[in-house]
Amino acid sequence: MRENDFLSWIASRSDFDPAKVPVGPGDDMAVVAFDKDWLLTAVDQVLDGVHFDLAKDGPRAAGRKAMARNLSDVAAMAALPVGAVASVALPKGMKESDAREIYFGLRELGDEFACPLVGGDVSIWPGRLAISVTIFAKPAGVTGGIAPVLRSGARPGNAIFVTGALGGAWRTDRHLTFTPRVREAIVLSLRYRLRAMIDISDGLAMDLHRMCRASGVGADIHAAAIPVHPDAAAGRKIEPLEAALFDGEDYELLFTIPSGRAKQLESDDKIPLPVTRIGTITKGSDVVLIRLDGTREPLPQKGWEHQG
Amino acid sequence: MRENDFLSWIASRSDFDPAKVPVGPGDDMAVVAFDKDWLLTAVDQVLDGVHFDLAKDGPRAAGRKAMARNLSDVAAMAALPVGAVASVALPKGMKESDAREIYFGLRELGDEFACPLVGGDVSIWPGRLAISVTIFAKPAGVTGGIAPVLRSGARPGNAIFVTGALGGAWRTDRHLTFTPRVREAIVLSLRYRLRAMIDISDGLAMDLHRMCRASGVGADIHAAAIPVHPDAAAGRKIEPLEAALFDGEDYELLFTIPSGRAKQLESDDKIPLPVTRIGTITKGSDVVLIRLDGTREPLPQKGWEHQG
Repeated sequence: MRENDFLSWIASRSDFDPAKVPVGPGDDMAVVAFDKDWLLTAVDQVLDGVHFDLAKDGPRAAGRKAMARNLSDVAAMAALPVGAVASVALPKGMKESDAREIYFGLRELGDEFACPLVGGDVSIWPGRLAISVTIFAKPAGVTGGIAPVLRSGARPGNAIFVTGALGGAWRTDRHLTFTPRVREAIVLSLRYRLRAMIDISDGLAMDLHRMCRASGVGADIHAAAIPVHPDAAAGRKIEPLEAALFDGEDYELLFTIPSGRAKQLESDDKIPLPVTRIGTITKGSDVVLIRLDGTREPLPQKGWEHQG
Repeated sequence: MRENDFLSWIASRSDFDPAKVPVGPGDDMAVVAFDKDWLLTAVDQVLDGVHFDLAKDGPRAAGRKAMARNLSDVAAMAALPVGAVASVALPKGMKESDAREIYFGLRELGDEFACPLVGGDVSIWPGRLAISVTIFAKPAGVTGGIAPVLRSGARPGNAIFVTGALGGAWRTDRHLTFTPRVREAIVLSLRYRLRAMIDISDGLAMDLHRMCRASGVGADIHAAAIPVHPDAAAGRKIEPLEAALFDGEDYELLFTIPSGRAKQLESDDKIPLPVTRIGTITKGSDVVLIRLDGTREPLPQKGWEHQG
């Protein structure tokens, strides 16, 4: 069984009343009508041997990453964190000091982003360390006026951007130490009309395909434009571009804006991190990689699928 | 390390602004101010080898129990479920049909209680099956006018009640098949002024101690009044009363009301399940078991602590 197949199957069975659940499974966060307000929520787990290596990375990094992944989902909606809850399955025999380190790790980014850990469940079990965080958020903006940015809003002609530099994160500490782009997403959404956004957790190629599918569009991506992290292919027998396209765990943002504002964004010094235009949304459904010599090839929908 | 110690330690470190988080860790659900509304939320996990036995009970029962435990937390607040999210860590090699059974199990009670599963995260890992559910709820009542019933509201003189019959649940299928008392809690709270409530997940003794500690009160409990399940001690070398006091996994409700209404509740045929008065809240902090012959003895604060 593949995780993606199972998730698609779940999404296909989620027949909500759209007045009650405007956004269900399939986006970065679910949106639930909560009387007159929006409750935005997402859940993400980190598991020993899949998302971190307890023996090597330690318990604090595991807790930090659990919260960071969830805050990255909030960033992907350009939303404002409100709070979080966590469940932790602790291996039998774990020292209490290590369990506390997990909590400190969870609190680290929670405190930084004013996202209180408002509840939790702890069990000791004969299995490995598993941490699940559920995060709540609300629309950002002074009066909550920034609508959540969905995956499905990309339109033909939109310029496609990414933040930061991509590739190699999972081979370094970056997948544990990254800072979720919560603030940057809000600044971007205050200054530009973000049409679609997703955080790059499973690789640029995979997450671009997801955004295009959700929006019913295609994309032309320019290989030479993709910001490749300097160490993306360090010590590996692959091209750096391969790493930038297909590695996961970057937790950068992939988003689109109307093309008329693209030039302005490229030179906007109010944006607190590098943003790079990598291509353009197209009609149809083809996601195409354009090489420097002009050759066009389908961008494979492959990427990072944690398989344990 | 003991789970309770760790949870207490976490609660002691949770210094929220009470205007933002009126109820944090330490109650059945956390309450977060969400603009003008209340967001109630709780998280509970079920783990193979602790809360269920995958080989014996099957995946559907595991999924059902994950949702049932969370709905029981909603019942304990006399609140109305709004939605839930789940993370599932699937053992490598699990068949997709089994994974679907987990989902069906989660949906079973979700659908019955109008509690949509609005999001989720699925990972495959080298560990055992772990399911974590986070549930959202809001105050019940036509206009949301029923305040959440906390553990901390018990007052000296209050009559103490339990629903159903206690003991032996974890030795039978009842810990998998129980129906959370969501509807009954709302009916009770519409007709009586519930002062404090908790769901009995770790045993009557343990959860009564928790309620008394949270309320700053003691309790006198009458041994002869405790509703013991007929099979509480079946096949065991213990007294049925022992099982009713110290077994966990009952998921019945323990609550208090002003004593002036106790007689009326005892004979109220509008309440859709048996409710039994078992004692009275007292000043001080002693939780006392009164035997049929009038002897008073401290009720041990022991109970069900899953140790894997």
